[in-house]
Amino acid sequence: MYIVPESAIADLISAEASFDAVEAVFASMAKGDAYNFPVIREAIGHEEALYGFKGGFDGKGMALGLKAGGYWPHNLEKRGLINHQSTVFLFDPDTGRVASMVGGNLLTALRTAAASSVSIKHLARKDARVMGMIGAGHQAKFQLRSALQTHAFEKVISWNYHPEMLPGMAEVAAEFDLPFEEVQLEGMTEADVVISITSSFAPIFGPDHIAPGTHVACMGTDTIGKQECEAELLARATVFTDEVAQSISIGEAQHAVKAGLIMETEVNQIGDVINGVHKGRSSDDEITLFDGTGVGLQDLAVAQSVVEIAVERGVAIEVDF
Amino acid sequence: MYIVPESAIADLISAEASFDAVEAVFASMAKGDAYNFPVIREAIGHEEALYGFKGGFDGKGMALGLKAGGYWPHNLEKRGLINHQSTVFLFDPDTGRVASMVGGNLLTALRTAAASSVSIKHLARKDARVMGMIGAGHQAKFQLRSALQTHAFEKVISWNYHPEMLPGMAEVAAEFDLPFEEVQLEGMTEADVVISITSSFAPIFGPDHIAPGTHVACMGTDTIGKQECEAELLARATVFTDEVAQSISIGEAQHAVKAGLIMETEVNQIGDVINGVHKGRSSDDEITLFDGTGVGLQDLAVAQSVVEIAVERGVAIEVDF
Repeated sequence: MYIVPESAIADLISAEASFDAVEAVFASMAKGDAYNFPVIREAIGHEEALYGFKGGFDGKGMALGLKAGGYWPHNLEKRGLINHQSTVFLFDPDTGRVASMVGGNLLTALRTAAASSVSIKHLARKDARVMGMIGAGHQAKFQLRSALQTHAFEKVISWNYHPEMLPGMAEVAAEFDLPFEEVQLEGMTEADVVISITSSFAPIFGPDHIAPGTHVACMGTDTIGKQECEAELLARATVFTDEVAQSISIGEAQHAVKAGLIMETEVNQIGDVINGVHKGRSSDDEITLFDGTGVGLQDLAVAQSVVEIAVERGVAIEVDF
Repeated sequence: MYIVPESAIADLISAEASFDAVEAVFASMAKGDAYNFPVIREAIGHEEALYGFKGGFDGKGMALGLKAGGYWPHNLEKRGLINHQSTVFLFDPDTGRVASMVGGNLLTALRTAAASSVSIKHLARKDARVMGMIGAGHQAKFQLRSALQTHAFEKVISWNYHPEMLPGMAEVAAEFDLPFEEVQLEGMTEADVVISITSSFAPIFGPDHIAPGTHVACMGTDTIGKQECEAELLARATVFTDEVAQSISIGEAQHAVKAGLIMETEVNQIGDVINGVHKGRSSDDEITLFDGTGVGLQDLAVAQSVVEIAVERGVAIEVDF
């Protein structure tokens, strides 16, 4: 079996490779070739940690396995370790034997960034010019960098609850030689694409902040109770997601469905757009909204890609297991 | 992190160490110090495989993690590999980082054998003399060997649907210099302890085959629909199990509960007996029945024990992960 430690990942996988892996697995999910297992998520009553497993099987990409790990809120203060800790384990679908183990921390950041970028490629207007970020934390940098690699934006604007973090967004814009502007939420109407990546439990923005024709990717909501935008925005938008079951139960769509503003059948799979089964955006005035909930198959896809590259380059650790 | 490959396990862990680990974790479960997560079990639609995860957290033994793997029915014929394939992953409960990876095939056999032995120690009559085996397959040898190490039996009797497999049981008896006798099911009334370890989907034995005062350990039923003994036997016996929730849903007790012959509250945790909270056997005439369903915490417990020994002896593979 092969081992690719966390420290090796950064040199092995690019945002582009993550994008390709995530796009392919979304397509497989919509075709029914790949599916996610029920998610296990447990508050273990120790260190206030949340621990669990996200598994799945992609019968087309032949990826089987899980991401295990979770959130240890005191890691940073107590030990100087990052709070999100995860590891991906891949199994041989032909035999059930463990095939590889891959550090999952950077991969999680990359696959989450790739998801909003896949939605931009398939749902944003081709003439989108201004990229708007709501949220400016650690993960926001990954989302923005990947978005700027995916589409030729001309300007970046950003709002954050803690404005002192906005220079981080400006730095990423500068990497791409793009002008950056700090805005109030009202100013977000300038954006053609908006990514929200917060850990909010109450709506931050809504129809007042989103102009017609905008593509919105809500990437922060992955738990019951979390919410980034007003449910009314989902009612006005055409809604897409990675996995419908997660979207309506733990994703951004949970609130709009609960309030009766949209029905489950109005939440579309992004994979259907990739596969050409759903036409995606139908006009330049339409608001499209991608509810990115994060599925185990994304983790398996990027991990599989990493292992292939690591083996090719001879940097995977081989263990006779 | 440490890696202990499957090939190293046999030299590292004894039936005695497995027994101690499983007894301790059953005690922790009954005290509420340890709990199992919901089990994921998926027919993945490839190679007719069943794949899944059994996880848990023991806050006393500080074991966190999962066993991942499953059943690949064509492994042996197609590839010369065993059909059951599993791997145990342990995590550091303080940080969420992966701590070790351990081959899970032999461990599963040992922890399953340890469970029936723990039940014999705590529930069989002290003067039990004759050990009866129903089933004579690969796993039956582990159950019998562990039982003979746990209690000073004087004779082994056995029945199997395929009698040509009984010499395997005779061999294990011979290891302990004990006489062996092949019996019909009617002859099983001679036994003071009976272990059933089959993959039956219909009852094989019942009250007619079990004498008063016998301890029965049903170890084969771990899925909806499987059944080794008539539900009536559970109604006559005092019933114990590793985990009540599994016992009444996927264990031997599922049928007796469904038929209204026993109530959930009549299924007792073996850990309560170990902890002295339940007195266990109350008379020499009582039939005690242990429904061994197999829980993830058993796997974590024996894996943790293996890693400790492997590190001590310097045979664990250390990887900077």
